[in-house]
Amino acid sequence: MSYKIGIDISGGDKAPSEIIRGALLAVDELKEGVVLIGCRDEITRELTANGRIPSDFSIIDAPGKITMEDSPVSAVRKKKDSSIVVGINHLKEKKIDAFVSCGNTGAVVGAATLFLGLIKGVERPGIALTIPTHDGVSLVVDVGANIDCKPLHLLQYGIMASIYYDQVIGKENPSVGLLNIGEEASKGLGMLKKVHKLFDVSTLNFTGNLEARELTSGKCDCIVCDGFVGNIALKVLEGGAELFKTLFIASMKKGIIGKLSLLLAKKNLKEFKRYLDYAEYGGAPLLGVDGVVIIGHGRSNSLAVKNAIKVAVRELKRDVTSQINRKVNQICSDNRVKEVLSNFS
Amino acid sequence: MSYKIGIDISGGDKAPSEIIRGALLAVDELKEGVVLIGCRDEITRELTANGRIPSDFSIIDAPGKITMEDSPVSAVRKKKDSSIVVGINHLKEKKIDAFVSCGNTGAVVGAATLFLGLIKGVERPGIALTIPTHDGVSLVVDVGANIDCKPLHLLQYGIMASIYYDQVIGKENPSVGLLNIGEEASKGLGMLKKVHKLFDVSTLNFTGNLEARELTSGKCDCIVCDGFVGNIALKVLEGGAELFKTLFIASMKKGIIGKLSLLLAKKNLKEFKRYLDYAEYGGAPLLGVDGVVIIGHGRSNSLAVKNAIKVAVRELKRDVTSQINRKVNQICSDNRVKEVLSNFS
Repeated sequence: MSYKIGIDISGGDKAPSEIIRGALLAVDELKEGVVLIGCRDEITRELTANGRIPSDFSIIDAPGKITMEDSPVSAVRKKKDSSIVVGINHLKEKKIDAFVSCGNTGAVVGAATLFLGLIKGVERPGIALTIPTHDGVSLVVDVGANIDCKPLHLLQYGIMASIYYDQVIGKENPSVGLLNIGEEASKGLGMLKKVHKLFDVSTLNFTGNLEARELTSGKCDCIVCDGFVGNIALKVLEGGAELFKTLFIASMKKGIIGKLSLLLAKKNLKEFKRYLDYAEYGGAPLLGVDGVVIIGHGRSNSLAVKNAIKVAVRELKRDVTSQINRKVNQICSDNRVKEVLSNFS
Repeated sequence: MSYKIGIDISGGDKAPSEIIRGALLAVDELKEGVVLIGCRDEITRELTANGRIPSDFSIIDAPGKITMEDSPVSAVRKKKDSSIVVGINHLKEKKIDAFVSCGNTGAVVGAATLFLGLIKGVERPGIALTIPTHDGVSLVVDVGANIDCKPLHLLQYGIMASIYYDQVIGKENPSVGLLNIGEEASKGLGMLKKVHKLFDVSTLNFTGNLEARELTSGKCDCIVCDGFVGNIALKVLEGGAELFKTLFIASMKKGIIGKLSLLLAKKNLKEFKRYLDYAEYGGAPLLGVDGVVIIGHGRSNSLAVKNAIKVAVRELKRDVTSQINRKVNQICSDNRVKEVLSNFS
């Protein structure tokens, strides 16, 4: 059976052309049904430009656009005809099975929280980002949905990340670490000491604090942090990758031998670039909302869009939403967890 | 005139041999006076091994050692004969002009705060780290001395960083940015909105919020953040550099052409590595304490130690401590700053 994946064609730096091209890749390669959400005229034009017949596609007309500069909260309330609000509402009404957007992250989080609501038992949504490591990938939650976290939110991020890693990335009982400035349980802010205690009594495969230096070491499958710290960490990593690239090329271009080896290494460097390319890892699921919502990078190209659609399909097939519901309620109603929580207040 | 720079020979993964070798480099190349602080027997042995005559050197016997595993607070109070406590006390008594340690960071911060005290008017010490950017260096304060920051602490970090960048790195009126998850003044945690207001009314060259992605872009000379976030950011960058190295080499070693170009590029890659090598940037000054204290990376080699000594000398020559005192008191007694501060409470 093929799912209907709704794609916001207005979101992202390369919208609408790269987004629609990504949707077409998904249709051709993955044989997934896509529903194009955005300004109908733009969609028709882009489909025609790609040699397709517009009437072959499901289109939902949503002429409004939430830009990257819009304030998320007010845009979600005011721009009712925007691709993000229309898309999320179609998901709520089950007219589509999942929603993928590379647009304004805050607006996607806001619309999903407001209109879809949260999975029963979940306190806050969290964005889960897949990052490359020395020998695989890790999943970091949260990277920006919730900057004002309470201990229970972080425990729930651990639970949701654990399910997602198990079901979508594919590793049973993945390890869960808490991002901190030191390994000892006594390290870091008071809040994190509380979170450490909560994880300790949970049934998750908790491996303790993880130093930020080991974020990309592969030591933990799932890495839990608040949205402020997570956002800083991932953006530093992104900026760092750009710095390394600039400095590397500048170094290599000094002298004829450097230039020659740069030419020779072209194929190898391409593979190296692939490891670091966010487009390879698909979008970031917004975990905790009551439906499958995938947030793509603002700079997504067609490959990234196709992979985000792939991620949405896998999340649907594994019924991640129901599993989160079950596991969050199971762990959070556990007496030891409840006891630790009651000691905080 | 040559300064007397005290070196903790017991701190760091490669202590005492690399530390002493670094001190010898400083003596030979920089013509600076060094005072070796640590276990006298070890110092004598290492000097002899390096073909030096121990009696040519100033040595302060401090047989105790604070390890990386020691709890900073209790170690500083209990290990009175440790190189860190003895060194800081000699600095307090002006028997040395500056103190350099690659040992337990928390213990150095603790001992300096406790025994030297803070510069009059300064509320908290901050560790200032120089990081490479696309076309120079930026200075990040704080990267781990103070994880529980108030708005005034961050304003003072901006002031201290600005003076250090101007005097030691060498650029008049350097720009100062506030590390945050978005550029708009309204972004981020409530605390950061307050800090933004404080910087706005200060006489610093404040350029607003800086997104973490631009940490290494060179957009801001001085980057201000709390010690928790700063520590996470710098450690992620460090771990990221290791990841890139591993993935790069793995990609290059696939196929004979890749291996060949890796060989050819050896010289260029060496230069690339230099850009990213913390050892090139010397140690991190502990700003705000009443004396020149430089914290070296735990993995410091002799080059890093020599460069840390160089940084200490430049800080002394420019009398950074007195300048911090003047400027902090000038800005913090300004009526507009006082007014903004009074609105917070």
